[in-house]
Amino acid sequence: MTRTAALEQLLHSEIPISRAMGIRVAGYDGTSLRLDAPLEPNFNHKSTAFGGSLYSLAVLCGWGLLHLKLAEARLHKHIVIQESSIRYLHPVTRRMHAECRLDEEEYSRFLRTLHKHGRARFALGVTITQDERPAVEFTGRYVVHG
Amino acid sequence: MTRTAALEQLLHSEIPISRAMGIRVAGYDGTSLRLDAPLEPNFNHKSTAFGGSLYSLAVLCGWGLLHLKLAEARLHKHIVIQESSIRYLHPVTRRMHAECRLDEEEYSRFLRTLHKHGRARFALGVTITQDERPAVEFTGRYVVHG
Repeated sequence: MTRTAALEQLLHSEIPISRAMGIRVAGYDGTSLRLDAPLEPNFNHKSTAFGGSLYSLAVLCGWGLLHLKLAEARLHKHIVIQESSIRYLHPVTRRMHAECRLDEEEYSRFLRTLHKHGRARFALGVTITQDERPAVEFTGRYVVHG
Repeated sequence: MTRTAALEQLLHSEIPISRAMGIRVAGYDGTSLRLDAPLEPNFNHKSTAFGGSLYSLAVLCGWGLLHLKLAEARLHKHIVIQESSIRYLHPVTRRMHAECRLDEEEYSRFLRTLHKHGRARFALGVTITQDERPAVEFTGRYVVHG
């Protein structure tokens, strides 16, 4: 099974609401993870994507990227969201596409702290785009511990 | 139908993921709205409440309170979340209980702006508690327009 298929299966089995939302792992290239989800189970009273579903997609995109990177480093750690903020710039009217990209330098610093203390925090930004412009900007701070 | 039953029906029909989450309107007294949801459809890989479900419950608690207050004032407006932030203080291991309380003075100021400009922003705080202590603190800024 590919790493992306394994991540999708993990999300669906361990976080069942991600299956109800129809979340799919759309791509991973070693530094960037893309998740998407259809509008239909996630619409709101205005027939656009519900703000809570956009948030869930974003928080899982950051979590999933950290999960894949730590698994590659054979670090089996807990990853927990500690705090986050989100800005809704434009309504999302079709399939929701989220992308989280790793800053390699920040990630190296984070790994050094994690090796030293067994615990470290890492902030990740996630963007949800429509028609190639940002519709939602999310920033989450995750805690990783042993 | 009571106002709280009507709000629950509205959430379930207009935002279907709220039904999948099992969100219930637990109480409303004119200044404070309580929503809750069972853990079971909302658990994560650690068998505690998924951060995205906690966020969705909180954002709908703020939205629902504004919806009820504006309906009482016979103001039929659009209510849209613009930006928000959330802090996870403790894991939620049982049924999730959210409460949003209105500051009457701030609400009066907001209503004056809304009457004058046909559009206004309103910030609301939502707390999710477990064993009478805050487990999640949410602040959302909503835009209301005609």
